[in-house]
Amino acid sequence: MGKIKVGIVGASGYAGEELVRLISRHPEAELSCVCSRSLAGNLVADVMPHLRELVPAGLKFTQADPAALRAEPVDVWFLSLPHGVAAEYARPLVDAGRRVFDLSADFRLNSPEIYEEYYGKPHPDVALLREAPYVIPELAQDATWKSARLIACPGCYPTSILLPLVPLLRAGLLKPAPGACVINSYSGVSGAGKKADLAYAYCERDESVKAYGIPRHRHLSEIEEQLSLAAGTNIVVQFCPHLAPMKRGIHTTIVVPCGSSHLLEATYACWEKTFDGAPFVAVLPAKGFPDTAHVVGTNRADLSAIYDARTGNIVITSCIDNLLKGAAGQAVQLMNLALGFDECAGLL
Amino acid sequence: MGKIKVGIVGASGYAGEELVRLISRHPEAELSCVCSRSLAGNLVADVMPHLRELVPAGLKFTQADPAALRAEPVDVWFLSLPHGVAAEYARPLVDAGRRVFDLSADFRLNSPEIYEEYYGKPHPDVALLREAPYVIPELAQDATWKSARLIACPGCYPTSILLPLVPLLRAGLLKPAPGACVINSYSGVSGAGKKADLAYAYCERDESVKAYGIPRHRHLSEIEEQLSLAAGTNIVVQFCPHLAPMKRGIHTTIVVPCGSSHLLEATYACWEKTFDGAPFVAVLPAKGFPDTAHVVGTNRADLSAIYDARTGNIVITSCIDNLLKGAAGQAVQLMNLALGFDECAGLL
Amino acid sequence: MGKIKVGIVGASGYAGEELVRLISRHPEAELSCVCSRSLAGNLVADVMPHLRELVPAGLKFTQADPAALRAEPVDVWFLSLPHGVAAEYARPLVDAGRRVFDLSADFRLNSPEIYEEYYGKPHPDVALLREAPYVIPELAQDATWKSARLIACPGCYPTSILLPLVPLLRAGLLKPAPGACVINSYSGVSGAGKKADLAYAYCERDESVKAYGIPRHRHLSEIEEQLSLAAGTNIVVQFCPHLAPMKRGIHTTIVVPCGSSHLLEATYACWEKTFDGAPFVAVLPAKGFPDTAHVVGTNRADLSAIYDARTGNIVITSCIDNLLKGAAGQAVQLMNLALGFDECAGLL
Amino acid sequence: MGKIKVGIVGASGYAGEELVRLISRHPEAELSCVCSRSLAGNLVADVMPHLRELVPAGLKFTQADPAALRAEPVDVWFLSLPHGVAAEYARPLVDAGRRVFDLSADFRLNSPEIYEEYYGKPHPDVALLREAPYVIPELAQDATWKSARLIACPGCYPTSILLPLVPLLRAGLLKPAPGACVINSYSGVSGAGKKADLAYAYCERDESVKAYGIPRHRHLSEIEEQLSLAAGTNIVVQFCPHLAPMKRGIHTTIVVPCGSSHLLEATYACWEKTFDGAPFVAVLPAKGFPDTAHVVGTNRADLSAIYDARTGNIVITSCIDNLLKGAAGQAVQLMNLALGFDECAGLL
Repeated sequence: MGKIKVGIVGASGYAGEELVRLISRHPEAELSCVCSRSLAGNLVADVMPHLRELVPAGLKFTQADPAALRAEPVDVWFLSLPHGVAAEYARPLVDAGRRVFDLSADFRLNSPEIYEEYYGKPHPDVALLREAPYVIPELAQDATWKSARLIACPGCYPTSILLPLVPLLRAGLLKPAPGACVINSYSGVSGAGKKADLAYAYCERDESVKAYGIPRHRHLSEIEEQLSLAAGTNIVVQFCPHLAPMKRGIHTTIVVPCGSSHLLEATYACWEKTFDGAPFVAVLPAKGFPDTAHVVGTNRADLSAIYDARTGNIVITSCIDNLLKGAAGQAVQLMNLALGFDECAGLL
Repeated sequence: MGKIKVGIVGASGYAGEELVRLISRHPEAELSCVCSRSLAGNLVADVMPHLRELVPAGLKFTQADPAALRAEPVDVWFLSLPHGVAAEYARPLVDAGRRVFDLSADFRLNSPEIYEEYYGKPHPDVALLREAPYVIPELAQDATWKSARLIACPGCYPTSILLPLVPLLRAGLLKPAPGACVINSYSGVSGAGKKADLAYAYCERDESVKAYGIPRHRHLSEIEEQLSLAAGTNIVVQFCPHLAPMKRGIHTTIVVPCGSSHLLEATYACWEKTFDGAPFVAVLPAKGFPDTAHVVGTNRADLSAIYDARTGNIVITSCIDNLLKGAAGQAVQLMNLALGFDECAGLL
Repeated sequence: MGKIKVGIVGASGYAGEELVRLISRHPEAELSCVCSRSLAGNLVADVMPHLRELVPAGLKFTQADPAALRAEPVDVWFLSLPHGVAAEYARPLVDAGRRVFDLSADFRLNSPEIYEEYYGKPHPDVALLREAPYVIPELAQDATWKSARLIACPGCYPTSILLPLVPLLRAGLLKPAPGACVINSYSGVSGAGKKADLAYAYCERDESVKAYGIPRHRHLSEIEEQLSLAAGTNIVVQFCPHLAPMKRGIHTTIVVPCGSSHLLEATYACWEKTFDGAPFVAVLPAKGFPDTAHVVGTNRADLSAIYDARTGNIVITSCIDNLLKGAAGQAVQLMNLALGFDECAGLL
Repeated sequence: MGKIKVGIVGASGYAGEELVRLISRHPEAELSCVCSRSLAGNLVADVMPHLRELVPAGLKFTQADPAALRAEPVDVWFLSLPHGVAAEYARPLVDAGRRVFDLSADFRLNSPEIYEEYYGKPHPDVALLREAPYVIPELAQDATWKSARLIACPGCYPTSILLPLVPLLRAGLLKPAPGACVINSYSGVSGAGKKADLAYAYCERDESVKAYGIPRHRHLSEIEEQLSLAAGTNIVVQFCPHLAPMKRGIHTTIVVPCGSSHLLEATYACWEKTFDGAPFVAVLPAKGFPDTAHVVGTNRADLSAIYDARTGNIVITSCIDNLLKGAAGQAVQLMNLALGFDECAGLL
């Protein structure tokens, strides 16, 4: 059987570049179409010079017209577009029988109401929103998502938060009161996207840590919706995102009241069970603090937890590469699983 | 009247270097003695090449023997030494009638019991510990500390935490239950000191954010003792220190349950009153997130707060330069006030 | 006598910010007017948050209309504007009897022909060009420049190159054949200015060293004109500028054939004589390689030289802070000397 | 046919870590033995946490005793050891019939005299030195090296210099007089190795560019020996290495007098011919300056050249990742070619 043909829409950003890299190296896939309005006509190898030896020679960016893309002989599309734009492409492509993996925020929520609350306008395609599963592969409870036409790939902050918390909430180990779960995340600058903006200039971000987006960062909507689903009750968390002076990586520190010294063992037992055999989650011992430098360039999440007897809190720390496990890597992992490839194909 | 003569013991670290810089530029002070066991005999300008045009030509490091230092014609000593070592110098110098500003942790606590609990051995000079005031200048409630023989200068993390919180606790605006006040701090690498240690090598710390020292970092002892004094009741906080990939700067994010939307106004009113006329504290509006890049190189603390109606929490952020407002700068500010100089002398 | 009143036109860039900082701290000067078309109406302290405790409270940016500025009660103007724009301001201000220190490239050359060759259009004010001296203070051969109405402040790369080379050429110690003097310079990213440009985004410049502007960077015009004046003959050099992943600082490595092992001693003797008593030049021993980290934040240049017997070349290295000795600091040093202040006033 | 078994001696450094990563991902190889005196007994996954999902579960570091390693069922050994130490391992392993790829400097030179001159002691195994070919794969002129028992892998600076220059010297296009070829290289800090040394601490290297090792860096010996072999005459160059504030990457700028405007075309023609079909060399157009950020993480070298009519010089720039094309990646590329694997196996 030949390789599947993969297309990428919106490959001009940092996550898009990672998709180009991962698909170019993928043993089961062939990069057959790369679309970008702003880059149409350019050689991919010229636009992504760090991938010169990897991308197919001669491959150029093409126009990204949704109708025209329907006709492309592509099996799987990745959409790496701003929110609101992805939805324009999703419907024609799924209706044309293509598999779509959407890295935007457009199909991540279950609730159109929450979408409108956070994104300031009605959802453009509620039917497809309801159809699309939101999947962190290690947390999927069955395999039904694998046959979905469109799969919503989680955001970077949410991945670093949901991976450690969802299993504990499902197991009933944590029941945080509203606002009592405090989450501080620190993201590398690539999380802000590839754009000409003084706020992300080298001289502005070097040596700079600062908070932003408090109290209602848009990722909060998918974080709380997923946590609430896992807990079976409404969960309200305090989410404090920050920018850190590095290219890539997210570090998340979660503090949750627990009240019992036995919770740490239960947490580790729950994690070991949930992540048993998962190639891309490493559960570290309580003293093994995750480090963004250890996950950058990988599709892996590192997790750890400590119980603080003085405060009665459990402190969970996690790290991912925001562009890999937090975006392109996880999307490829989802493709691997949905299409029956080895979960790690192209990701090691 | 001539300039006062200043000596520095333990000038080989990063805070010590900042002391050398600040005193060399100080209009009322003269750097007359710089001591370091490891550097004795070397020219200060050779050891601190970034200060070449500033330090007195020909000034050399001398041996740091406590007994010999008593005889030096020095009016004011700064001790920039590891904890446990400062105490060896403090007693002979104060008994010789010198003013001592101690940047170590040796005299920061009120309680010898807490000292022993956190530092693992009995305090070496309990009488001097009891005598020494712990002073953040903007939080001092009267002027009695100015006549103390030895003044304990606060640590870097504590300064970033106590400046915003102490006024609110004194005013009774916040009454956090044990463990409900969650503090995440991110420090530049210079906070770990100037040492040959692979953990602080460029290639290990670049692009790396990681937690450490949870749950019981040593600074927690002075943080909680001061918060408890301010609140008039025992305060237990969750303190999560982290390393960030930058030379200098501390960013602190504090989450405290408050339960009332009026608290934000009350917080700002309390801060405005407390820091009225304070040259080195800037109270930023609720949307003006402090940024470490804005305080590095200054003796200033930037503070801000946001009320999150969804969670009922107040989120406070603060930034300082760990080596200036968090160490050497604040020590010079204390000297300025104690000796009657302009508070800003040498610090702008 | 009161303080002189200083105005700054074009303070929105990185060098402009340094001017604001230096003048705000200057013992003999008062910052009375800060102009910027794009920032008019904003508080200086809001636009430059790292200078919050320094800048006069309430000082706002004003419109930068050349005619209106003539009426401002300002003694000394600094122009920190793009080339071509400074000339619009220079003429009205000098004709109104003001002293002008121009940090742009507009008045640095002697030759209007070379200006046109490098900047692509005729010089807009040849009379003022001929009148304006180009001054690196340590290299001035007499004091006549001090009475000039307009003083052209040197560029950053040129300062790092001319300081070590001009004395040697004047003394006839070096006589490089065309192209045989090879100069490699590495600049921090702030040298590219403060602008929203993807090329200077954090994620593009972090971990990146690259050459640019070869073979004809615009600074080459003033470098070669000054070297030729010093040598008394036409000098053609190979100048290779690069970007390095740091905020500030320039490192320059100059290779010149010399052919005699005695040249190293002669070089040091020449430098020691030229820079005797100069507070802002440090001549380091042959094994003491200058380091950008040692000059950043200072107005100092560090110089060193090595003779390589194998090649017959002398290798000269120098470092400056591109925004200080390479721009704002040197401009203030020039003002200090021209107005009779202490050379170091406001610069330590 | 099964995978070949690979062992690595001295895997505790940064190049050693890259070897572990590359071999773990290699489709034709199996990492069967990892040796380190200092790390024996530790799990590889614990020591190299960024490789957690990659390295064989349970693999531990073993003692690195040369005699014992002879008995290991390993087909290919990589030696990633300090110079002087590799030679102790090379002889017993090749005599035991193993293929050895040595990343140290021990077998890079042809001349034992030059070795002694640069390394300060007689070469420990002159017979093996004479036998071992020094190979940059793209520059090999025939295939005889592929059957060598021990292959000397080039150093990082030399690779960035020899790749562009050797073809031009072989073709007689360049004939630089002694000292007239000026080479400035800037290396990321990982080039200094993984060690606890204050000189390589984060706070010392951040924001720091500085020269070092001038005039006689040890790599000069292999650079000049290879250039001289290529030119058929003795070549003496001016080599100026520098440290740049980044983890990885080397940027090299080479200036050579040429005297003819036709040389640029000839250079490009020569390069295109030499590197035709070479997967790991990209020849960029004259205006396409190589950028370290574009090669870091790859085994690729990017090259470019400009002719400067004003000076009569050609200016060549090149970039590599010092740990990949400059060390571990090139070693694996050599293994691939020597053992008949696809040249790119495990390297994309």
